[in-house]
Amino acid sequence: MAELLKGKPVADAINIRTRANVEKLMGQGITPTLAILRVGERADDLSYERGAVKRCEAVGVAVKSVVLPEDISEDDFMDELNKLNDDDSVHGILMFRPLPSQIDGEKARCAIDPKKDVDGCTDGSLAGVFIGSDIGFAPCTAQAAIEILKYYNVELKGKKVAVIGRSLVIGRPVAMMLMHENATVTICHTKTRDVPGITREADIVIAASGQMESVGQDYVRNDESQVVIDVGIGWNEAKGKLCGDVDFDQVESGVKAITPVPGGVGSVTTSILVAHVVDAALRLFV
Amino acid sequence: MAELLKGKPVADAINIRTRANVEKLMGQGITPTLAILRVGERADDLSYERGAVKRCEAVGVAVKSVVLPEDISEDDFMDELNKLNDDDSVHGILMFRPLPSQIDGEKARCAIDPKKDVDGCTDGSLAGVFIGSDIGFAPCTAQAAIEILKYYNVELKGKKVAVIGRSLVIGRPVAMMLMHENATVTICHTKTRDVPGITREADIVIAASGQMESVGQDYVRNDESQVVIDVGIGWNEAKGKLCGDVDFDQVESGVKAITPVPGGVGSVTTSILVAHVVDAALRLFV
Repeated sequence: MAELLKGKPVADAINIRTRANVEKLMGQGITPTLAILRVGERADDLSYERGAVKRCEAVGVAVKSVVLPEDISEDDFMDELNKLNDDDSVHGILMFRPLPSQIDGEKARCAIDPKKDVDGCTDGSLAGVFIGSDIGFAPCTAQAAIEILKYYNVELKGKKVAVIGRSLVIGRPVAMMLMHENATVTICHTKTRDVPGITREADIVIAASGQMESVGQDYVRNDESQVVIDVGIGWNEAKGKLCGDVDFDQVESGVKAITPVPGGVGSVTTSILVAHVVDAALRLFV
Repeated sequence: MAELLKGKPVADAINIRTRANVEKLMGQGITPTLAILRVGERADDLSYERGAVKRCEAVGVAVKSVVLPEDISEDDFMDELNKLNDDDSVHGILMFRPLPSQIDGEKARCAIDPKKDVDGCTDGSLAGVFIGSDIGFAPCTAQAAIEILKYYNVELKGKKVAVIGRSLVIGRPVAMMLMHENATVTICHTKTRDVPGITREADIVIAASGQMESVGQDYVRNDESQVVIDVGIGWNEAKGKLCGDVDFDQVESGVKAITPVPGGVGSVTTSILVAHVVDAALRLFV
């Protein structure tokens, strides 16, 4: 039986730190505030927003919701975004994407003030991840994966890590962050030949391809020595339940430790987001 | 006998494209111009500058040299840098580093206009390399390695690449650029265990550790199937000649192809720099 790397205790530990920082800020008369910028009423956005708002409330972070109509013009949207950039009472901005087609998503992404980019999507944040410095913030899901590994004392230095997936929200940033922790990282993607051959050689496997249950038994050594972090989450129609990128039933018995889905990486992400908001407010004093 | 991947024909091909682009710009009344910002008279800087000036002259790119005294204050230095940022007749800026200790090198690096950052050192350029988009420019040496591989038709898609070194001027950017070309990249560094074991598994090895002749016979399979790109260059006192990060005599006979040192990657770098200046001028019309 593999050790289950549950997200809840990791999130709890982050939340305790965040709450202490909120109190510090409150003592200075500052209420750390997250602005949520949403166009329309997409179910996924609403669900993530509910989680973020709940998490904010629990630690004393204020939320300012800006909800815009589906047919808003690009100019009007950019005005709203710039208002949030300029508003000194707003410390972090969460902008839901993708945006409707009349708005240039790339232009909007680049327009967010990197100092408020708590979701880690601007060039500044991505450069920070690449360089290993404090420009902007790391993408929340990538950081959630790292926080889980650290919380459970999984050694990274000198370890072989295989990252499956090269997206800008998870694969590429998590690869860089693991390299900054002195792991030896291989990035696998759709053009990689023999991904299972690479993951079987790894000490740690990060599954972030977005392909549900694509990581099966042949991806691991089945000697109970490897750690698997499953970043995926999606609804499995056939099984009638949420599943990750890993076929849990196939992989679990053969590895040392694995994150469950749900209850793994996903349950840490909003705590990271809210911690970033508080960090953004704290950075104003540095 | 391995195929020698010489830099000269690669540089020649780049220079032909660059010269054609210069003529296009001249036809519009624009002389692409590289500003060189140098503090003091360090021998390495002067040597690189001579090469860059010669290359610029050969293709019709103008050079504006700004040479500042070793004891210049940070404020005065930043004024000079900002003048070059604001000067519309300057399309690219090459700032020699490291700067003397009274100047904050990090502040100076970040102050260069990314649009003129032909040496690929700003956050914008590094974000561009990470994202795989046209913000700024790739670091010249990293791009030189890629150009050599492409010129000699070395297939990258689906190939395993081991990069030795994770610096921001070469290891990390070349890893990302190879990943954008659909290679499967592993980044090795000082904390990596068994680097030779990793490089022996690779189709292509990029040696960029900065450790002279550190890549010996045990780093390759000796089955004449691998391609080795040697990014290092330094004076070997014992041998009385320039050497790379690869022990050429040990490695050459066992691989399919290898870059010589000198006459390999280093001989392509200034052509890339000058091509970037011309690209920076061309981008003004896009």
